Amino acid sequence: MKLAITGKGGVGKTTLASMLARTFADHGNRVLAIDADPDANLAAALGIPPALSIKLQPITGMKELAEERTGSTGGFGTLFKLNPAVSDLPDRFCITHDGIRFLWMGTLVKGGSGCACPENTLIKRLMGHLLLERNDVVIMDMEAGLEHLGRGTSQAMDALIIVVEPGQRSIQTAFQIMKLAEDLGIGDVFVVGSKVRDEGDRCLIETLIPRSRLLGFITFSDDIKRADLENIAPDKIALDSLAEVRAIKERLVACMAER
Amino acid sequence: MKLAITGKGGVGKTTLASMLARTFADHGNRVLAIDADPDANLAAALGIPPALSIKLQPITGMKELAEERTGSTGGFGTLFKLNPAVSDLPDRFCITHDGIRFLWMGTLVKGGSGCACPENTLIKRLMGHLLLERNDVVIMDMEAGLEHLGRGTSQAMDALIIVVEPGQRSIQTAFQIMKLAEDLGIGDVFVVGSKVRDEGDRCLIETLIPRSRLLGFITFSDDIKRADLENIAPDKIALDSLAEVRAIKERLVACMAER
Repeated sequence: MKLAITGKGGVGKTTLASMLARTFADHGNRVLAIDADPDANLAAALGIPPALSIKLQPITGMKELAEERTGSTGGFGTLFKLNPAVSDLPDRFCITHDGIRFLWMGTLVKGGSGCACPENTLIKRLMGHLLLERNDVVIMDMEAGLEHLGRGTSQAMDALIIVVEPGQRSIQTAFQIMKLAEDLGIGDVFVVGSKVRDEGDRCLIETLIPRSRLLGFITFSDDIKRADLENIAPDKIALDSLAEVRAIKERLVACMAER
Repeated sequence: MKLAITGKGGVGKTTLASMLARTFADHGNRVLAIDADPDANLAAALGIPPALSIKLQPITGMKELAEERTGSTGGFGTLFKLNPAVSDLPDRFCITHDGIRFLWMGTLVKGGSGCACPENTLIKRLMGHLLLERNDVVIMDMEAGLEHLGRGTSQAMDALIIVVEPGQRSIQTAFQIMKLAEDLGIGDVFVVGSKVRDEGDRCLIETLIPRSRLLGFITFSDDIKRADLENIAPDKIALDSLAEVRAIKERLVACMAER
């Protein structure tokens, strides 16, 4: 199962991505978590120590590796064809921490050095080639906003999960994402309500989002806020939220099995 | 003065951009507000009625206009040279509401239709050509994250204002933005602390951000949250926040005058 987590900026995409990765891994799935945002922070949310994540090469390095291995230039498609399984992904681009494999798009090294189009193309092609075994789950944390849907970065994903918070703006973004995902032919698009404080917040989301798409809610949590303040993995301290994400994961698995 | 508002997703960029536009306009400045995010919501935050904003052509339409007027293809640089002042900007791309002129980058019309590179190039060139009179203020609300700094969209801006919330992630993003802005040669980079709930939150930001860059704080406000819930302009109901933004604007003007 290949899942992309998307939504407006600041709604809690990385928190959901990291906690979903944790619940799938705890359940015995082999999880590959991918940070597809140049403003990257999934590594920290997964509790990967900076000393480890700083050594990790970004996915753009795969292009050079493809050239080394295949002798051809520009042929990263070839590399993915030679390494089509999650377990084949070269170690220098993947670290395993607490039972979760992780790779990242890379960040901007220099202002004015250009767009993230090449990195998005790489991830899109990797996702198109990656052969999953029955037990594999890929969770990709997308960049905020809509542009990745123009690029079709998530085209090969099985499902999109859109995170919304109680408010018109993130819900409007969710509806735009649903429409754009349809253009891309992504059939399964779900929604998770985040930072829900009370019955009114929950009601707003339930009123606007079709019931068939809504996987559940994550209640606003001071523990998640504290995790960000202290730069620690939210699943280590926000145990109530982790239980909510476990229920969301179960609903997701049931929905995907039905289709 | 040309200002770009930037920062991690969800920190409150659009809220600050709309309130800054309001305080400058109230002070008698001629304000041009630009939404440079494909996941656009500055129009709503400025209180522009959807019936009005829906008619507005995105900036990409300027390319066709350039071709009509100059007879050459691909020559939007020419158009900007012919229309170098804020008041020259063609009406079909600009609406004036409540004393603020507004234009937008445009959104994604179709999934898989490509990146936002052409739109970013247009805005960058427009900003490079726009001649401001003494009284003019341009406020550009940037896309969440870092990519626009790779593209150099804000290269011609006089100052960047980075919005942070109390938390490590948005502050890490702020430091990355500072570094990338230096590469672009943007000298004036300021920070505003947003969603500050208590003395601890304020302290965290004061400890990490150099004093010379810190313009001030916007306290967490249920009124701002309500504005989003009810889809109304925050400056209409969050009057305490507007007073905070007025102080931020005064500090900004004083800092810019000193340099």
